[in-house]
Amino acid sequence: MTSTVLTQFMAELLSGKIKIVDLTETLTPDFPTITLPPEFGQAWPFRIEEISRYDERGPAWYWNNFSMSEHTGTHFDAPVHWISGKDQPNNCVDTIPLDAFIAEACVIDCSVESKDNPDFLLTIDFIKQWEAQHGQIPARSWIFMRTDWSKRDKRTEYLNQKEDGAHSPGPDAEVVPWLVKERDVHGFGTESVGTDAGQAQHLDPPYPCHYFMHGNNRYGLQCMTNLDQLPPKGAVIFSAPLKIRSGSGSPLRVLALTPTSPH
Amino acid sequence: MTSTVLTQFMAELLSGKIKIVDLTETLTPDFPTITLPPEFGQAWPFRIEEISRYDERGPAWYWNNFSMSEHTGTHFDAPVHWISGKDQPNNCVDTIPLDAFIAEACVIDCSVESKDNPDFLLTIDFIKQWEAQHGQIPARSWIFMRTDWSKRDKRTEYLNQKEDGAHSPGPDAEVVPWLVKERDVHGFGTESVGTDAGQAQHLDPPYPCHYFMHGNNRYGLQCMTNLDQLPPKGAVIFSAPLKIRSGSGSPLRVLALTPTSPH
Ligand SMILES: [Mn+2]
Ligand SMILES: [Mn+2]
Repeated sequence: MTSTVLTQFMAELLSGKIKIVDLTETLTPDFPTITLPPEFGQAWPFRIEEISRYDERGPAWYWNNFSMSEHTGTHFDAPVHWISGKDQPNNCVDTIPLDAFIAEACVIDCSVESKDNPDFLLTIDFIKQWEAQHGQIPARSWIFMRTDWSKRDKRTEYLNQKEDGAHSPGPDAEVVPWLVKERDVHGFGTESVGTDAGQAQHLDPPYPCHYFMHGNNRYGLQCMTNLDQLPPKGAVIFSAPLKIRSGSGSPLRVLALTPTSPH
Repeated sequence: MTSTVLTQFMAELLSGKIKIVDLTETLTPDFPTITLPPEFGQAWPFRIEEISRYDERGPAWYWNNFSMSEHTGTHFDAPVHWISGKDQPNNCVDTIPLDAFIAEACVIDCSVESKDNPDFLLTIDFIKQWEAQHGQIPARSWIFMRTDWSKRDKRTEYLNQKEDGAHSPGPDAEVVPWLVKERDVHGFGTESVGTDAGQAQHLDPPYPCHYFMHGNNRYGLQCMTNLDQLPPKGAVIFSAPLKIRSGSGSPLRVLALTPTSPH
């Protein structure tokens, strides 16, 4: 009833040889939620309400009620979220195969480019330059686009809303189907509020990351932080969404396991 | 930048040598929530509301808003949940050290005893009998009390509410401090709606599992399922709560990693 690898895995965790990095933003009412044009339905921001705190409402216990959307805070996108993924098998958070919740990540550092240009679009060429340095993206890897967007002021510079809409980086319309077909990636993850760029409604197709990833039964992660603490390759990502019946996505805790010593 | 153990771990996962078992109940409005006497504050059951489904409210996307409590569905109890744990360091879901979210489990099979007696209380003697068969409980292990309670009819037999209150199994008042002091356990997990027995208000102290576990900065898991699919020892449990600011607990996805072949 033992697995040598599981035993060694626990031993390395306990001895600190494997380090855990929290890629999750804290859920508070201030955390920015995506805002759509007013004719569309809106996602709830996080709201919390105390039930009791060692008081007459509950003398020995403290607890809270809360409300939010499936796409509030650091969260997971299931294929059913997008119309292109609506007929994929096992496309909801409660039916996705469990092994999808544990996968390695390749972290593409676009922080300098995104600082210079909030509308920066990740391209096939940019990925090929990354591969020239780090080797080909292994199949079934998350692609995490590091932009340092999580370090921006959450109230003013995160959604980065201007008169013509939001401005934040994301993948272009060519690189997403290429990542699926040529690299068989697991999904796409970002630090910004969505997996697509702020101006992705103007791309062809609109919202290419949602369209192609979910249309090919792949996943999304967004509103992540601490991507700058990950190695370019080799981090193992635990990202298990809540088991919401027919859920299109879910807030979740995203943890990365990485080797402690960088060699 | 590589860890041999992490690489082997992923290889065993992908090849099916390590199996993932979902210990999580599906979040639906029907899932039973604990009900307190009417003078106390109450936890919200799970409620879900469609924002759009490929329609005029959002032509290309489907998503939902939802509400619940920190203690709804399969969930994690943080030490701050109980008054005995209120001054412990790092006692909220957003401050608990990350390595607390990955730990091995010892599964104590009380399913026969709980079927015969819904008020069954787990004792030190019962644990010692388990240890005679499986060896001493290793430090920093979850103790999971298997009762097959998750197989009961959720509407009628799960809370098992009678005129004198709820009737469901749990630990007695002696075994909990013994597990903390003598076995240095990580926490206590159950299939029923709480970590304490349904009639635990009559024990001394009342709710001993909450009182002693959280008073010693240990954790709780409840409303789990599929404990009958775990080996008595050696399963590695991933149980990372949402990062709710100052949260007393959290609904979460609980996954167990186990060796596929039982030898
Ligand atoms: Mn989303
Ligand atoms: Mn609880």
